[in-house]
Amino acid sequence: MGMIGGSLEAFIGAVHRRGAALDGEVELVCGAFSSNPEKSKAAGESLYLEPSRVYGSYEEMILKEKELPEGERMDFVSIVVPNHVHFPAAKFALENGFPVLMDKPVTLTTKEAKDLKVILEETGLLFALTHNYTAYPMVKEAKQLIKNGVIGDIRKVIVEYPQGWLYNLVEGTGNKQADWRTDPERCGAAGGVGDIGTHAENLAEYITGLEITELCADLTIFVEGRRLDDDANILLRFNNGAKGVLHNSQICHGEENDLNIRIYGSKGGLKWRQMEPNTLELTNQDTGSRIIRTGVGQLSEHAQAHTRQPAGHPEGYIETFASIYRNFAMALRHSWGVAADKSATGGLGGGKADGSYNPEIYDFPGIDDGLRGMGFIQTVVKSANDDTTKWTKFEI
Amino acid sequence: MGMIGGSLEAFIGAVHRRGAALDGEVELVCGAFSSNPEKSKAAGESLYLEPSRVYGSYEEMILKEKELPEGERMDFVSIVVPNHVHFPAAKFALENGFPVLMDKPVTLTTKEAKDLKVILEETGLLFALTHNYTAYPMVKEAKQLIKNGVIGDIRKVIVEYPQGWLYNLVEGTGNKQADWRTDPERCGAAGGVGDIGTHAENLAEYITGLEITELCADLTIFVEGRRLDDDANILLRFNNGAKGVLHNSQICHGEENDLNIRIYGSKGGLKWRQMEPNTLELTNQDTGSRIIRTGVGQLSEHAQAHTRQPAGHPEGYIETFASIYRNFAMALRHSWGVAADKSATGGLGGGKADGSYNPEIYDFPGIDDGLRGMGFIQTVVKSANDDTTKWTKFEI
Amino acid sequence: MGMIGGSLEAFIGAVHRRGAALDGEVELVCGAFSSNPEKSKAAGESLYLEPSRVYGSYEEMILKEKELPEGERMDFVSIVVPNHVHFPAAKFALENGFPVLMDKPVTLTTKEAKDLKVILEETGLLFALTHNYTAYPMVKEAKQLIKNGVIGDIRKVIVEYPQGWLYNLVEGTGNKQADWRTDPERCGAAGGVGDIGTHAENLAEYITGLEITELCADLTIFVEGRRLDDDANILLRFNNGAKGVLHNSQICHGEENDLNIRIYGSKGGLKWRQMEPNTLELTNQDTGSRIIRTGVGQLSEHAQAHTRQPAGHPEGYIETFASIYRNFAMALRHSWGVAADKSATGGLGGGKADGSYNPEIYDFPGIDDGLRGMGFIQTVVKSANDDTTKWTKFEI
Amino acid sequence: MGMIGGSLEAFIGAVHRRGAALDGEVELVCGAFSSNPEKSKAAGESLYLEPSRVYGSYEEMILKEKELPEGERMDFVSIVVPNHVHFPAAKFALENGFPVLMDKPVTLTTKEAKDLKVILEETGLLFALTHNYTAYPMVKEAKQLIKNGVIGDIRKVIVEYPQGWLYNLVEGTGNKQADWRTDPERCGAAGGVGDIGTHAENLAEYITGLEITELCADLTIFVEGRRLDDDANILLRFNNGAKGVLHNSQICHGEENDLNIRIYGSKGGLKWRQMEPNTLELTNQDTGSRIIRTGVGQLSEHAQAHTRQPAGHPEGYIETFASIYRNFAMALRHSWGVAADKSATGGLGGGKADGSYNPEIYDFPGIDDGLRGMGFIQTVVKSANDDTTKWTKFEI
Repeated sequence: MGMIGGSLEAFIGAVHRRGAALDGEVELVCGAFSSNPEKSKAAGESLYLEPSRVYGSYEEMILKEKELPEGERMDFVSIVVPNHVHFPAAKFALENGFPVLMDKPVTLTTKEAKDLKVILEETGLLFALTHNYTAYPMVKEAKQLIKNGVIGDIRKVIVEYPQGWLYNLVEGTGNKQADWRTDPERCGAAGGVGDIGTHAENLAEYITGLEITELCADLTIFVEGRRLDDDANILLRFNNGAKGVLHNSQICHGEENDLNIRIYGSKGGLKWRQMEPNTLELTNQDTGSRIIRTGVGQLSEHAQAHTRQPAGHPEGYIETFASIYRNFAMALRHSWGVAADKSATGGLGGGKADGSYNPEIYDFPGIDDGLRGMGFIQTVVKSANDDTTKWTKFEI
Repeated sequence: MGMIGGSLEAFIGAVHRRGAALDGEVELVCGAFSSNPEKSKAAGESLYLEPSRVYGSYEEMILKEKELPEGERMDFVSIVVPNHVHFPAAKFALENGFPVLMDKPVTLTTKEAKDLKVILEETGLLFALTHNYTAYPMVKEAKQLIKNGVIGDIRKVIVEYPQGWLYNLVEGTGNKQADWRTDPERCGAAGGVGDIGTHAENLAEYITGLEITELCADLTIFVEGRRLDDDANILLRFNNGAKGVLHNSQICHGEENDLNIRIYGSKGGLKWRQMEPNTLELTNQDTGSRIIRTGVGQLSEHAQAHTRQPAGHPEGYIETFASIYRNFAMALRHSWGVAADKSATGGLGGGKADGSYNPEIYDFPGIDDGLRGMGFIQTVVKSANDDTTKWTKFEI
Repeated sequence: MGMIGGSLEAFIGAVHRRGAALDGEVELVCGAFSSNPEKSKAAGESLYLEPSRVYGSYEEMILKEKELPEGERMDFVSIVVPNHVHFPAAKFALENGFPVLMDKPVTLTTKEAKDLKVILEETGLLFALTHNYTAYPMVKEAKQLIKNGVIGDIRKVIVEYPQGWLYNLVEGTGNKQADWRTDPERCGAAGGVGDIGTHAENLAEYITGLEITELCADLTIFVEGRRLDDDANILLRFNNGAKGVLHNSQICHGEENDLNIRIYGSKGGLKWRQMEPNTLELTNQDTGSRIIRTGVGQLSEHAQAHTRQPAGHPEGYIETFASIYRNFAMALRHSWGVAADKSATGGLGGGKADGSYNPEIYDFPGIDDGLRGMGFIQTVVKSANDDTTKWTKFEI
Repeated sequence: MGMIGGSLEAFIGAVHRRGAALDGEVELVCGAFSSNPEKSKAAGESLYLEPSRVYGSYEEMILKEKELPEGERMDFVSIVVPNHVHFPAAKFALENGFPVLMDKPVTLTTKEAKDLKVILEETGLLFALTHNYTAYPMVKEAKQLIKNGVIGDIRKVIVEYPQGWLYNLVEGTGNKQADWRTDPERCGAAGGVGDIGTHAENLAEYITGLEITELCADLTIFVEGRRLDDDANILLRFNNGAKGVLHNSQICHGEENDLNIRIYGSKGGLKWRQMEPNTLELTNQDTGSRIIRTGVGQLSEHAQAHTRQPAGHPEGYIETFASIYRNFAMALRHSWGVAADKSATGGLGGGKADGSYNPEIYDFPGIDDGLRGMGFIQTVVKSANDDTTKWTKFEI
């Protein structure tokens, strides 16, 4: 693959590179790591890339790689730049024939997301979006338990994403992560809601299989001088009649990255917490709780396909990116008509020698997740800006 | 004391009796335990009361006890009946000269609560309401930490009260607890919001010292055939600009009694959970969390005055009732001009031999807590019934 | 009952009084609270006792109470003095016809314990020992699960009792609790092993139904100037071939009162922790863990008989004393030929109107527990004093 | 690097490969993955290696790679075979000029370990042993806190390593992992003690900086038909007078991989648990506990150098291998006189452009850890085989 963005000082670039490297199925062969050629070069050197394949711009990379012979040129691009560059970079890659794996949120605006969907349909190329939190084995297990009716009809969903790292005005003090995330031009219409609220929304919809139909949002900027929301409290209503609460924040002093979800149905409940991701609690009023753990007992194929270690050997954040890269690589190979899983004779991948495999098990988020996320941002901002209307319809 | 209500099959009557007995400062001397004289008699017998002081109605008890000589007659009444009897029983007791300690919510309607406040002002008698969850030592500590500015200006409050025991239609199947709590005539305008939502509201306002000024509520009846709300999701706004979320439920399958609160300020945060009540977490983004435990290290006088055991000897639910009874007894004695604390030379009570003591340390909930609770119920129901207005002002 | 010891500054006296009061089945009517008559009087006054029944010595109390008419005089004595007074006080009470409930360890020496057993056999009077930790509902449940074969044959037992309150030389600084516990004359041959190690031994043998047959101990005094062990590490072997580890300490800086046990069998395991006593974990390699909670689902009658609140209303330390007092009172009434449970028509007690009840459900520790405890102390000290013999037979 | 062992069905081979790949500092270029050439070839193919560099034996690999030009041939070998092949493979590699990174325990016998040390001294080549659990950031932090005197003089160490996966006779049923670990020929003199007990020993000595001087062990084979210990309970004494308990087991039904340690000193204590590796608890009797978390606040350089993600993004098991590979790669580069850290301008590595770096921060286990481990196995087995001697001196 070739990487767009992800210079040495970026956080998410290294995450993507480690995720891509973990399973040995994807190799970084080139990159345009920064719009500053010196920075791009420094990154390429530190990554042991051939200097000739370290580019000064994504346009250059895409055009030059395109000229390389098949088998040598990069197979796809990974886009890990701030939000405002997502759309133009993805568009350029796709229009030049390269599949795209991209960091979320999908684009800066809903319009761009819709345009991207059209381009994807026209080119027929593969696209993945790193809503990585749904790649944890216990999230896969939770989804299957619900699908299999274990907790009955869903009634209530509580999804939270508290962080505390923006509790004071760190933007403008040299914190690059904070800078672009609080800048409407580079980040979009929402701050925390776009950055982390969309993860919460995606997690809730992915696990439950439900869709939010209307919501009521209260957005706040608590830190003086900030330009985008740093706190959100939102009431949810789902398409099956379930009710919910979603709140995310970046001013919860002392909270690290505590994405968590609780789902209650007519027959039981489920609880999961990203910071202890290998535990899933299945609650029941009459029989007490059962603790489900990564690697313990008979789990779904879906969970097993995303588990790398025996029980009790903690798996974490980096594995979620690895799973998306691995699954994307399987889909690519399948699209090429070769074995989805090079290690068809063993290993994690469950592909068959004839190239077939079960894409429902090796799933990854795509453009529709991205569109739902953009719809969520748009609907939340609309609701928050209107202090008289109680319920705002979810619209994309 | 004399007890009104609390027959053998009632849940809360035994809780009050154990709470009253624990510290040896209050003695049950008489009771009208049921409107059914046989049941009242059976309870009296099992409680080793003199048969002559077991009454068939509260009116009888109050009038007969009034005729007994001072020092022999009951000193106050404890009212532990369903909500609709709260007001008439309390009124009758007060107008006949007996102070009242009563279970929450204070009355069936806001009007009754206001009338009760007038009666209390006119009679000048003492009144306590068992919003017991604020009597835990770590709740006292949390309140003092906030008062002392340890977490700075409060920005966000999340208070939850999930239960699961009404996940299906248990009312009408012989579950007396469920029966009256889901009956509008005996329970009032709200179900879960009145039963447990008010505890959440009281806890949030007690610890923070803030008041809810407006809210946006979504109430649901999930169980077919039920007549009152079994689920509530509510957005809160406080008088200092803080935002919040309160949700309570009785259909959260597998949840026992998980009242909990998280409070985030400009300098830190606090987390407390009723089901592990002896732990309070003080969160901080820069230094990590500190674990505060009942009985460990230098806690506030307020926490110490509500702690009975050395650290690591778990204190629980019954102690919260004991503390309210003990504090109420101290206030009564103080009002009589005797030592607030009979054990002025030792023990838990911190009274002085001259009858003085610090009522701010030995506090207990009263009529104003009751009024806020009624206002909360009324405002939530009003908001829930109005699907167009986003923010409903908190009114009593 | 009448109490021997338990003046206002004592810790355990108040625990016993609260425990006795909680269920309303036992009434404190007299006491010899201190060998200092002034202190005894002060305690009696603060406890609202008739001054004429507050005595200056236990001999006085026993003799005077004996002269009171039946029905008026105390029914039994509760002995809560330092260890060296256990035997003489119990002997005197028993020989004058009073049943005895006593704090552990049973006596100062094994010889005294054996003599006490003889006296009990001769008088035929009831005797209880407050090894209170086995009265938690989840300990009862664990014992029944094992009895019912749920975890198969027991292989390994790990029981721990770390505390930290003696991490430095607090004795001699006015800490009465520390003073007598570190004084060989008042405490016996062992310090921490007698004070808390015996609780660990009792808990392990009670739950498993096994007996320790040999052990290998390493005792240490870590704090300079201390006269008795403050740390113990012990290997255990049980009569069924199971192996174990028991360690207790009072120098584990920061540990409160963390008695806990893990038991592994051929079919599963159990874990319980006193500091979160309402949770029992049933572990299983193939199916994952199940969380058993006080008050949730179908528990054994034994657990239910020791549960006072609905699930999620935390029960704690004081309830364990209450259960021993309540069960002892039931046994007393049964011995008198009256209904074991006055509240035979309801309430916690499960007695029948004809006085019958199931003493296996309403059990309490007695002289044999006391003897095992003395044997444990004696065997540990013997092993620790012998640095060449690996395994020391458990002998009483 | 070239890998010896680690065919597709092996557990630890994939762990090493993922660990090596994670940071992009080490590239797998060749391998002798199995003594079965077909299996070796299959592994090489699935790992996208050049077929010419997939060898049928380690001897072939070492000799052929040696002939390749510098810069092209492998830089070191990674040995991930069962214990009995450790020594011959390492010896052959070293004698042919290749540095070695090897899985633990270091060799089959103490003699081999001593011989290996001599070879290392003679060749002057670098050697790393994957006692990976000491590479967690919070283990690094714990070591530094102790070094800095934060918990004072160490008094007590409790280190546990319970697993449950061998609770019945799985060996001989096709479980390759179980087969060799329970076979004295391939595993050595001890079963569980060698496999996991040595990790516990290494962790305790690494964090505390102390050495075990004598011990008393009780080894058991609980599962009928097994040939090596599956359970160990051991009393420890350390060179500073501290006491300890170490127990490991593979029959603790329901335990996954629960390596954990508690260390108590004169000024505080520390607790760490591998299954939640990003949390370290600093206990204190007087001030309560402080929670130290990966990535939160001001941690030691040592912890920071082993942290890859922001706080709350869980890091796990694979990162510990990655850190050893990364640190080993830095040491190799330093030994070559180039910058220890290619990314000297950024990234995790803290090397300088001139090749210098602080090896105390970027440490990794080596031959001396291996020798201590062999001494531990040997001493435990000796103690366990002698039921009369209480204390056995720790000898290598």
